[in-house]
Amino acid sequence: MEIWADLMKQKIALVTGANGTIGRYVARALAAREWHVLGLGHGGWQAAEQTEWGLSSWDEGDVTLTSLRALELRPRLIVHCAGSGAVGPSITAPHTDFQRTVETTAAVAEFLRVDCPGAVLVYPSSAAVYGIADCMPMLEGMPRRPVSPYGFHKKIAEDLVVEHARLFGLNAAVVRLFSIYGEGLRKQLLWDACQRLRRGEILFSGTGGETRDWLHVTDAAALLIRAGENASPACPVVNGGAGEAVTLADFLGHLFVCWGRDDAPRFTGSGRLGDPEHYQADVRAARAWGWAPAVGWQSGVARYVDWFKREMAITR
Amino acid sequence: MEIWADLMKQKIALVTGANGTIGRYVARALAAREWHVLGLGHGGWQAAEQTEWGLSSWDEGDVTLTSLRALELRPRLIVHCAGSGAVGPSITAPHTDFQRTVETTAAVAEFLRVDCPGAVLVYPSSAAVYGIADCMPMLEGMPRRPVSPYGFHKKIAEDLVVEHARLFGLNAAVVRLFSIYGEGLRKQLLWDACQRLRRGEILFSGTGGETRDWLHVTDAAALLIRAGENASPACPVVNGGAGEAVTLADFLGHLFVCWGRDDAPRFTGSGRLGDPEHYQADVRAARAWGWAPAVGWQSGVARYVDWFKREMAITR
Repeated sequence: MEIWADLMKQKIALVTGANGTIGRYVARALAAREWHVLGLGHGGWQAAEQTEWGLSSWDEGDVTLTSLRALELRPRLIVHCAGSGAVGPSITAPHTDFQRTVETTAAVAEFLRVDCPGAVLVYPSSAAVYGIADCMPMLEGMPRRPVSPYGFHKKIAEDLVVEHARLFGLNAAVVRLFSIYGEGLRKQLLWDACQRLRRGEILFSGTGGETRDWLHVTDAAALLIRAGENASPACPVVNGGAGEAVTLADFLGHLFVCWGRDDAPRFTGSGRLGDPEHYQADVRAARAWGWAPAVGWQSGVARYVDWFKREMAITR
Repeated sequence: MEIWADLMKQKIALVTGANGTIGRYVARALAAREWHVLGLGHGGWQAAEQTEWGLSSWDEGDVTLTSLRALELRPRLIVHCAGSGAVGPSITAPHTDFQRTVETTAAVAEFLRVDCPGAVLVYPSSAAVYGIADCMPMLEGMPRRPVSPYGFHKKIAEDLVVEHARLFGLNAAVVRLFSIYGEGLRKQLLWDACQRLRRGEILFSGTGGETRDWLHVTDAAALLIRAGENASPACPVVNGGAGEAVTLADFLGHLFVCWGRDDAPRFTGSGRLGDPEHYQADVRAARAWGWAPAVGWQSGVARYVDWFKREMAITR
């Protein structure tokens, strides 16, 4: 019991999915705040890279009760970043998406209930839980009506977290992340768009009028940590966006400028299955915690292009 | 393909959890309607008993994608009765409750999507998804705010069914069962009360003012089959109750009469964790399908007492 009491004084955090983009930034931000950060999930690391991203240890494997119980230390904080990361694959393989998002969350919740009572759980959910919204900006209290398996499973994972908070006193918080981007992210719109530009392609799917609420991954990581400070059995749920609706045409137009092009993107006129047309977060709840985004989308896109070109060794 | 076409003309049904009380009555009711009924789940049968309850085959085991794919035939109808069956154990072992209710439903939904497209899924959910209701009787469109892990997991299982119906065109229907009882049920209020009476105990937990909406299991089975006839990708959700709020005092008082006692039940004055105080179903949606309960609660209780006394070989 004394050992446990000692450990409880230490700042030990677990980041599941710590090899994903959000997980990495969360791990690094926690390490910068003097947390001892354990990582669990899929993917290999170079030793130097693991340290650079703030991880004290790394266990490779599925997030299950068994792998959680095999951790060297009991965390005081878990940021459960593991899980499915995209709408597209959830449509072709919904059961895999269910297992990655829902079953891992059930395991983490059970681990906290039985093995780490008193610890804090932060769950990065997604704006995809809202689906087609009745009004903009999206408010946390709105009905959740997802339109993709990804959105359904994120909603279900939220419900599991709320269940454990309300019924078992788990200290928890949920952050519904909007469009997260940043250096290192090798998928989704900005990555795909840079790949296209690299090949000289300027045609994009959609109408250009779709809106997204972009949040740089460093701001997302700061918000997730802030959520941990505000976690409770009431399980607050806050939106994680900048609060700004940016059209696809404006966003990609700015990418073109940063890339050094003087033309503009062209659009096919039709979008993708499972993607609502508009997103904009109401972020008053997150701002009430004293959090605010630090990276505007224009400078964020510029940073991303610089990173991308360095990675690809492209000169302007 | 010809074999498949032939099979599709046959009335092949799968009842998961067919060894449970609701599962048994559903299997027997399907067999009476000339369905070929496969069973999958836990529990052993005597050969004669299996036939008596209408089962053509019985596979013992967990409901998983593997066990579903190992079935001898592809069903046209699945009534997914497997899953956790009570609030109490869900509070002490929520992760087991999650696995039994949610993971099995995810497996059944995936099996239908990939292996039996065009088949029908009927999901027996529970009034526990409502939790503490704002108004009575409970309407299907009310917000679901469960207050037990059992209720949370039933809600999540419903959401998985709705997901597969809306996004993948699965023909599905959900019936939210209220207080199901009937001959053969060896748990829950009526069973416990009969056991108490057998021991001469007349003290019951609660105030006596709590209300439940009782539905005899033969009526529940008929409604689940009717739901299968009305299943669609819109996934109708209907309440399965009699539409009548019966106080605990009236219900147990009638039990005392049927038992042959001339006194009345006494109450401790406090209830159980995880149980809302009042339940009453709005059953207009189920009645609009042409279904109506055939067994009133008074005659249902009398039947149950007769069965219980025969089972226990008690004479009046």
